Amino acid sequence: MAICCFCLTEINCMKYRFTLLLVLISFTVMADNGYRLWLKYDLLKTSLVNTYSKQIKSIYVASPSSTTAVAQHELNLAFNGLINLKVLQGSKLAAGSIALIKSSDLKKYKINNVEIPAQPDGFLVKTINVEGKNIVLISSKTDVGLLYGSFAFIKQLQLQKDISKLHIKEEPKIRNRILNHWDNLDRTVERGYAGFSIWNWQTLPGYIDQRYIDYARANASIGINGTVVNNVNSNALILTKDWLLKVKALADAFRPYGIKVYLTARFSSPIEIGGLKTADPLDAQVINWWKQKSEEIYQLIPDFGGYLIKANSEGQPGPQNYGRNHADGANMLAKTLAPHGGIVMWRAFVYDNKVPDDRAKQAYNEFKPLDGTFDSNVIVQVKNGAIDFQPREPFHPLFGAMPKTSTMLEFQITQEYLGMSTHLVYLATLFKETLSADTYVKGKGSTVAKVVDGSLYQNENSAIAGVANIGNDVNWCGHPFAQANWYAFGSLAWNHELTADEIARDWAKMTFRSNEETLQKITELMMGSRETTVNYMTPLGLHHIMGWDHHYGPGPWIKNKPRADWTSVYYHQADKNGIGFDRTKTGSNALAQYDPAVAETFSDLNTCPEKYLLWFHHLPWDYKLKSGDNLWDAMVKKYYQGASEVKQMQLTWNGLQGNIDATTFVQVKQLLAIQYDEAIWWRNACVLYFQSMSERPLPAGLPKPAHDLNYYENLTFKFVPGI
Amino acid sequence: MAICCFCLTEINCMKYRFTLLLVLISFTVMADNGYRLWLKYDLLKTSLVNTYSKQIKSIYVASPSSTTAVAQHELNLAFNGLINLKVLQGSKLAAGSIALIKSSDLKKYKINNVEIPAQPDGFLVKTINVEGKNIVLISSKTDVGLLYGSFAFIKQLQLQKDISKLHIKEEPKIRNRILNHWDNLDRTVERGYAGFSIWNWQTLPGYIDQRYIDYARANASIGINGTVVNNVNSNALILTKDWLLKVKALADAFRPYGIKVYLTARFSSPIEIGGLKTADPLDAQVINWWKQKSEEIYQLIPDFGGYLIKANSEGQPGPQNYGRNHADGANMLAKTLAPHGGIVMWRAFVYDNKVPDDRAKQAYNEFKPLDGTFDSNVIVQVKNGAIDFQPREPFHPLFGAMPKTSTMLEFQITQEYLGMSTHLVYLATLFKETLSADTYVKGKGSTVAKVVDGSLYQNENSAIAGVANIGNDVNWCGHPFAQANWYAFGSLAWNHELTADEIARDWAKMTFRSNEETLQKITELMMGSRETTVNYMTPLGLHHIMGWDHHYGPGPWIKNKPRADWTSVYYHQADKNGIGFDRTKTGSNALAQYDPAVAETFSDLNTCPEKYLLWFHHLPWDYKLKSGDNLWDAMVKKYYQGASEVKQMQLTWNGLQGNIDATTFVQVKQLLAIQYDEAIWWRNACVLYFQSMSERPLPAGLPKPAHDLNYYENLTFKFVPGI
Repeated sequence: MAICCFCLTEINCMKYRFTLLLVLISFTVMADNGYRLWLKYDLLKTSLVNTYSKQIKSIYVASPSSTTAVAQHELNLAFNGLINLKVLQGSKLAAGSIALIKSSDLKKYKINNVEIPAQPDGFLVKTINVEGKNIVLISSKTDVGLLYGSFAFIKQLQLQKDISKLHIKEEPKIRNRILNHWDNLDRTVERGYAGFSIWNWQTLPGYIDQRYIDYARANASIGINGTVVNNVNSNALILTKDWLLKVKALADAFRPYGIKVYLTARFSSPIEIGGLKTADPLDAQVINWWKQKSEEIYQLIPDFGGYLIKANSEGQPGPQNYGRNHADGANMLAKTLAPHGGIVMWRAFVYDNKVPDDRAKQAYNEFKPLDGTFDSNVIVQVKNGAIDFQPREPFHPLFGAMPKTSTMLEFQITQEYLGMSTHLVYLATLFKETLSADTYVKGKGSTVAKVVDGSLYQNENSAIAGVANIGNDVNWCGHPFAQANWYAFGSLAWNHELTADEIARDWAKMTFRSNEETLQKITELMMGSRETTVNYMTPLGLHHIMGWDHHYGPGPWIKNKPRADWTSVYYHQADKNGIGFDRTKTGSNALAQYDPAVAETFSDLNTCPEKYLLWFHHLPWDYKLKSGDNLWDAMVKKYYQGASEVKQMQLTWNGLQGNIDATTFVQVKQLLAIQYDEAIWWRNACVLYFQSMSERPLPAGLPKPAHDLNYYENLTFKFVPGI
Repeated sequence: MAICCFCLTEINCMKYRFTLLLVLISFTVMADNGYRLWLKYDLLKTSLVNTYSKQIKSIYVASPSSTTAVAQHELNLAFNGLINLKVLQGSKLAAGSIALIKSSDLKKYKINNVEIPAQPDGFLVKTINVEGKNIVLISSKTDVGLLYGSFAFIKQLQLQKDISKLHIKEEPKIRNRILNHWDNLDRTVERGYAGFSIWNWQTLPGYIDQRYIDYARANASIGINGTVVNNVNSNALILTKDWLLKVKALADAFRPYGIKVYLTARFSSPIEIGGLKTADPLDAQVINWWKQKSEEIYQLIPDFGGYLIKANSEGQPGPQNYGRNHADGANMLAKTLAPHGGIVMWRAFVYDNKVPDDRAKQAYNEFKPLDGTFDSNVIVQVKNGAIDFQPREPFHPLFGAMPKTSTMLEFQITQEYLGMSTHLVYLATLFKETLSADTYVKGKGSTVAKVVDGSLYQNENSAIAGVANIGNDVNWCGHPFAQANWYAFGSLAWNHELTADEIARDWAKMTFRSNEETLQKITELMMGSRETTVNYMTPLGLHHIMGWDHHYGPGPWIKNKPRADWTSVYYHQADKNGIGFDRTKTGSNALAQYDPAVAETFSDLNTCPEKYLLWFHHLPWDYKLKSGDNLWDAMVKKYYQGASEVKQMQLTWNGLQGNIDATTFVQVKQLLAIQYDEAIWWRNACVLYFQSMSERPLPAGLPKPAHDLNYYENLTFKFVPGI
């Protein structure tokens, strides 16, 4: 490689005496297959390489550990790639040192006057002068903080920032930032659309796939510090010795990256693998079984994070099978973890078709009365909305409703209801919508984010979970843009005050490395994408009208199923006269679960945001919206608008050809074509179905659907992924 | 990228005015994840880059087509990577042209005196002088031949050969060189150990994964020209319109690479998706249904290859359900394909537990009488041995037994019985053992290869199939060395006269690019690996003694199952007195199915190779082998030898550290550790089990197994891959 690549002329290199005529050089022999995620360390432009290479001379590590070793390795990878420089470890602080020094070591180096963040994982990245030499200090109270600081420094290079006067001080707002993998032990992934599970249980514990390491790198780069590796619909087998050894191997691989492993625990495990006759949480044998099981786990995995439990929900066993309540179950498990520092994450996603009440109300009804009865290492895990990860939901009424209970937030990163892995839907805007929603429980400004980060009620624990969209597709997430949702979840888990826009910009720049104009267009594409999807799927507060079982495509006609609250007609309530679920006082009164200030806003048609209209209100088709349109016309227009917006996304993307890696360009182009077809499908199916209720004509000028309703109702699909 | 990478000094490039201090350069930021297979086009050493760059100046394509386009793209990829050169398309023949010219065009260029191979896919790669200019002529009767020639030329560069006087003339010995994917429509893969199916049916036809293209590239590079994309245990759904559109999308993607798509067809499809009451192959409605179905397929896929059928085998429906025979079924389908040039591959893998005869005899018993009754576009697909892809089997007696029938050979590339994807087992030695086996049906030299390539009986059609070991693991095959088996299958399908050793050398050089000493050690490791596996699994002709159902690990104790011929005891027949399956005249007389010359050799204990001893003979434990050992001691020693050899493989590999990509080194090291543990497991379980029969002590000096037989018999495994 002794060549001058831009000169396009012959070069004579005296040392090796070779001459090459170069017409054009491309070092990227293989197309970009997306495997590297946002950690793409391709060579920067020459001016930056030149500048950075003068500023980065060595890496200095004050107190080596397994975590600083991976930090150093990552810095080397980045320097190697981004600026083509192998940076050696320095034996002392020198000009150009990138210095990883824990806060407790700072005084040894006579470094004073630097403010280290209070949170354990927080970090400082600062250009300082030590005895006349400029160094980049990366400091933290913890080794993991040093790793996070290293990634933050690398990100500055990736974002092509000026690193001559760095001063970055960050600390996480939420303590536990966790991915939930709905991965089964046979490697199928419930609601997974990016291939199959990345955990190859068969070859564990002996074989540590490089993928596990790269998974840990990616997570650490965005501050994710926990992973629940198996499905909430759990298999007790995971808690047997042979399988715990496999889990231990993963935990060992993740530990240097500051990532704790958690497991889901099937509540009936004492029966299924313990040989007991009961799983009653108040039974002494059961209590003892779990105590021993937790101890066994901690023997293998000293930093085991704890259990995530789905109990008495959708057929899963739980304490109610024995006449006990959720707190009885959660506290029993929590007590086995407390001595080791573990936590129980107990899901509030419960509803019972024997309960004759609005499904949206049931979690609150069951959990609110238990406030104050949970042990301090129990966190109740609440989905962002009260139904189930719909394209849009108002915030869950449980947020803020349990002042004496740690409440964590569960987002779904995988796009169960948002087009699986073929629709480009940037979810940070959805995440932000929930996080910034105001519960008003302690007056204005009592946002969901403040409930979740613990600041509103001064909770000891705080946590946030995202249901992973990760599979064994080469590019991890199926859709190249789905990587942005993993990235955005981590970014907001770390700092929920970031805007969706700035997250998109950073991600796009690191991922595409295009020119600023292209990045701007990509960011705009991303920022509008979720609203577009809401428009062609569930505008104006509609929800839960997707296809049966696999949830693929539209299914507003779904009815007559084993449970009413698994049908679509239960949720949209459409008939000749109107549409929508009345959750006001005249209906299910679910609104009463919110703080009165919120309830009032949503109840009053004058103040209820149109985006939540049909979530809370049943309205006549000729109800007049602010636009002047009646409800029917407005709804239909939204559907058509959504589909048109996808067409616009296609045009925008097509305009980027040549400014994006060619393979990625084609991939996204193909996916946008699928998305457009499916947006039309959603639009046509929903409009035709609701038209069969409203018996009204389409607003003037809108093209008639290509098929009739019967056609859409009779579409069937086999082997849809996500089991 | 304006840098001189090996000078390690400052370079001044006047045009761009930049200066860089380079300490050390590494362009490989990411570890080698194996995705590129043997098509690794990393930069060659400087001297070669220099030499080749002088010899390669332009690419000239006489008659552009979709196939020459991909050939040109591949040449560009290779030149870009290997020698860092973007080679433009030339508008005329010039010095240094790499010229792709079909034989029919040669006279236009006044190129005479070159011998073009007779076979359509054959090619010539030759340095010739045209009007005083040296060019590399790549010529063939067909476009696909030009593509193959291009890959052959690239391989010369990869192998770092002198390209100044090229003269390579190749043509395939077998016409149809086909991969069989046992991929189900839900993306599970029967006997697949490298993740899940690479066919993402959900996103087809709209999304053409880059993986499909790279799959086609890899196959074309080794001459594979057909793929059966779905499992022989077929689902009729694949033949419905929606799914055929998905298959068409794959066919369209593969077509430029000379790869035809085939489908398995469930024999009962006329009932399941056709609404008929019968699938009787002599029923007029059934015949018409298949005729229309084939026509529908050819409308979509004009070069559709044909059907692969597993009928009346292991529960699959077939003509015998209606009192018809295999020829009735095969010919009915063949007639629907014949007008379009398609073929039927009809599997001879049949056996019936209601037939009270040695399972090894049943395929011959059923098919031999049908010789002469098959249509000319039917090929009978015969596994290499009469049982089922065991670590070692004598060649199948059907080879050579049907002079009037085209007989194709089916190998298993996926390691169902050879350690799945965690054992390093190079299969070319197994493939060669079958191909070079002499059937003697037309006298000495009547090898299986000659039966299969059609030369022995002058068959019109010839074909060979390999059950693919390909999955969606990043590295395609799970084990880095399993890629060699895909490569070896293709190489031998093209030219069965190649030696296993030269295939290993070429593959290793292209894959590892290490120094010659390292490559020599890798080749030796590969060459011994299959015999080693036979030693620790099934020495001396033992067979079918693996674990129940999933076939993972040893299970010589398997008995009392629904079918006797699904048990282990049926095959090894061990008791206090002896061991082995008597297939001589005193036993099942399966030997009578071979030509008398072969039967005699295998029947006579003096001439029967020891490797087949217990396949054909039941012998007392104290039977004396040529070594002087009695059978018991010899067998036990083989088991211990096998495990020791794996230990030696580990030592050899460990010695290569530093000469192999670091990630690959660690991967293989971990896998060899698993293989060693499992070799010990096989050894201990089998030795202890057979000891419980023989009641004999271990030969002196051999260590006692760590556990007792009971321990091994009670091991259970859940969620073993390969369904």
